[in-house]
Amino acid sequence: MDKIVAFCKRRGFVYQSSEIYGGIRSSYDYGPLGVEMKRNIKEEWWRRLVHMREDVVGLDAAIIMHPRVWEASGHTATFNDMLVESRTSGRRYRADHLIEDATGADAEGMSAEEMTKIIAEDDRIKDPVDGGRDFAPVRPFNLMFETYTGPVKSPENVVYLRPETAQGIFVNFKNVTQTTRVKVPFGIAQQGKSFRNEITPGNFIFRTREFEQMEMEFFVEPGTDEEWHEYWLEQRWNWYTSLGINPENLRFYEHPREKLSHYAKRTVDIEYNFPFRGWSELEGIANRTDFDLKQHAQFSGENLEYFDQGTNKRYVPYVIEPAAGPDRIMLAFLVDAYREEEVNGESRTVLKLHPRIAPTKAAVFPLSKKEPVSTIARQLYDELKGDYRLFYDDSGSIGRRYRRQDEAGTPFCVTVDFETAEDKQVTIRDRDTLEQERVPITAVRERLQGLISG
Amino acid sequence: MDKIVAFCKRRGFVYQSSEIYGGIRSSYDYGPLGVEMKRNIKEEWWRRLVHMREDVVGLDAAIIMHPRVWEASGHTATFNDMLVESRTSGRRYRADHLIEDATGADAEGMSAEEMTKIIAEDDRIKDPVDGGRDFAPVRPFNLMFETYTGPVKSPENVVYLRPETAQGIFVNFKNVTQTTRVKVPFGIAQQGKSFRNEITPGNFIFRTREFEQMEMEFFVEPGTDEEWHEYWLEQRWNWYTSLGINPENLRFYEHPREKLSHYAKRTVDIEYNFPFRGWSELEGIANRTDFDLKQHAQFSGENLEYFDQGTNKRYVPYVIEPAAGPDRIMLAFLVDAYREEEVNGESRTVLKLHPRIAPTKAAVFPLSKKEPVSTIARQLYDELKGDYRLFYDDSGSIGRRYRRQDEAGTPFCVTVDFETAEDKQVTIRDRDTLEQERVPITAVRERLQGLISG
Repeated sequence: MDKIVAFCKRRGFVYQSSEIYGGIRSSYDYGPLGVEMKRNIKEEWWRRLVHMREDVVGLDAAIIMHPRVWEASGHTATFNDMLVESRTSGRRYRADHLIEDATGADAEGMSAEEMTKIIAEDDRIKDPVDGGRDFAPVRPFNLMFETYTGPVKSPENVVYLRPETAQGIFVNFKNVTQTTRVKVPFGIAQQGKSFRNEITPGNFIFRTREFEQMEMEFFVEPGTDEEWHEYWLEQRWNWYTSLGINPENLRFYEHPREKLSHYAKRTVDIEYNFPFRGWSELEGIANRTDFDLKQHAQFSGENLEYFDQGTNKRYVPYVIEPAAGPDRIMLAFLVDAYREEEVNGESRTVLKLHPRIAPTKAAVFPLSKKEPVSTIARQLYDELKGDYRLFYDDSGSIGRRYRRQDEAGTPFCVTVDFETAEDKQVTIRDRDTLEQERVPITAVRERLQGLISG
Repeated sequence: MDKIVAFCKRRGFVYQSSEIYGGIRSSYDYGPLGVEMKRNIKEEWWRRLVHMREDVVGLDAAIIMHPRVWEASGHTATFNDMLVESRTSGRRYRADHLIEDATGADAEGMSAEEMTKIIAEDDRIKDPVDGGRDFAPVRPFNLMFETYTGPVKSPENVVYLRPETAQGIFVNFKNVTQTTRVKVPFGIAQQGKSFRNEITPGNFIFRTREFEQMEMEFFVEPGTDEEWHEYWLEQRWNWYTSLGINPENLRFYEHPREKLSHYAKRTVDIEYNFPFRGWSELEGIANRTDFDLKQHAQFSGENLEYFDQGTNKRYVPYVIEPAAGPDRIMLAFLVDAYREEEVNGESRTVLKLHPRIAPTKAAVFPLSKKEPVSTIARQLYDELKGDYRLFYDDSGSIGRRYRRQDEAGTPFCVTVDFETAEDKQVTIRDRDTLEQERVPITAVRERLQGLISG
């Protein structure tokens, strides 16, 4: 993990946020390569889920929504972590983690009272900092960030930063069905920032208080929900593997019945086997039933039933929700693609990222700064640069330039050499196979397009 | 304006946020067509400013930054609106607006004391709601949204939602120069949400408390800043006109010297002539000098000087900042493109959006649901759908289908007809010229690519 963090900083993928001020805990900024990679992940999700499907449309709802939204969704009442303060060190801990770490028992879902009792009675549970055993009673702590709109800090002006993008979709269900021609089964997809005031964020960009989500609510007729759930499990699995994630590092994890969220009939996670924390959730795919639409119908007084013209039936749709996080997906792509290997007796660090995910799609190298090599290379660069992120590099030995691009995950390097002026051909070098292919200059654009969409 | 708002709702461009709960003031959600259009605006900015230039890199910093950032930038002390409360109605107003509306005087930049005095003395200034003249003293109100990280609401845990993306760039200046090969002059570009707790937001998506920004800080050697400022004024103007904005609706507005922000040497806005509010800022292009880097150097203790290897000089760069808002740019594109016109004796509503900005690039229409028309159309759709947003429509008369796409701003409609099976050709219809072009099926993809990138 330290290696990945250092690599991410060194190559401009991820920096600590506000680093010159000592940083801000578990908060990160994406550097020049990182922002491109994250954009590609989000774009590939949008392309495959929205653009390539006739049955999914997009949405972009505000982060600050009406506070009643969170009453209806249950977040105001139940979106809590159990918090315990140690009176000896003054530190605050997640009570469930404190119990689990000391006893091995499973404390998830316990009430505050139960946890308070266990902590008071079990001598193995100590303050990890000073070993103290003087704890205040466990209390629930709501994870939504609160702020005020307008100049007056009174209770009626409290608003929340959304803890999930999903609710923006549910409250727009009626708008979307009335202003577009979608018909159940159909989905509404959204990407954007969410915020959770976690007591213990951590593990680099795996869990941060401010994070990005890619969520899709797929509305189906009740009774067809289990079948659609299976369908989306397969679709989402294929998304990862088709973008080059090693399937051996992926697995499905079925949430036990007794641990399901209050809204869920069934939830299955896609987990990735992170080297530093083992199997961990990349994405949750939940059957949210008709819980959310019914809650919003009740709290808003709006009729959120759907009239199915095909079957003449009226119902509140069930919802299948694939909910993914591009930040942790990016971390998975990075660790999955990171290699240190020997090539022709030399060692190289290489990011074997799928071309669609790679921050830079291709680099153009003139073998010399002299004419006509330089001008030809520049013309080629100018021809390609409107299509995707390119890199032009004319300094240092060709071997060094290759190694720089290998580290950055650039899949293709196009070299203009001394023969190019005569044979009008250039060389495309493949990052992974190291094979070099001679291609006419006029065919480079199409060839690269083919290789990238591959 | 009401017409545009109604149109945006009816066609799924923009909905009121949390509408089923009565809405939340001046907050909007982007519907299926709106989200695509806004994505296109952001993408086109990124493509032209980052991907097509070797001297600009991207960044994506967190919304919640270290609070010292806002002390250094001056936001904590001076990012205020002057607020006055009417004791008769209990309402709060922006004091400068109250004075300006009643007296025509220019109150911008006045101190709280000056405004309090004017309001007390000038009888023309009344509470717009009840005509009352009993006002509390004017006081500054900081526009940053405040919240707390972690479970304890104590002063040391206060953080802010960023009021501008720019500072995320300045605090990463050192990271970017150390981990990439950028050399002054160069820029760092960023897109993302910002938040300002405006007392009087309004005018649909023109001014909202939560909004998106596209900012670029272009770092230059002191002394070359005025020239670069001119360069970026021209570049940004061309961005709008190349995307189809009527240049007659654009103008430069030079901020008077005495009204410049504390950090600016010169600021020029690009204004758009909105039908409902006249000339208004689309984008501000400021010469921010070395103010921000020097402030951050002082507050953080880091050396933020740049060593120029070419000239062997050491200096703190000056900064030229083009700062644009995709929400209001979208509004400008919409009103600029919206037409109601007569075509062949029939009236149509059409959005004459540039193909790169249009939410849907093309629609595929089979003239019949029968074979082989339907299968050919479906194959064509499947071939194209990985490239951009497409729409498939096989219901209703062809005239009605055209009108629907005209309203949605779709620039090209591809019709598969009864001859297609024989001559292997389809018709591409241009939204604006209404011309129809017969094109071999095998050439459609390339032809559309050419038309869209046009």
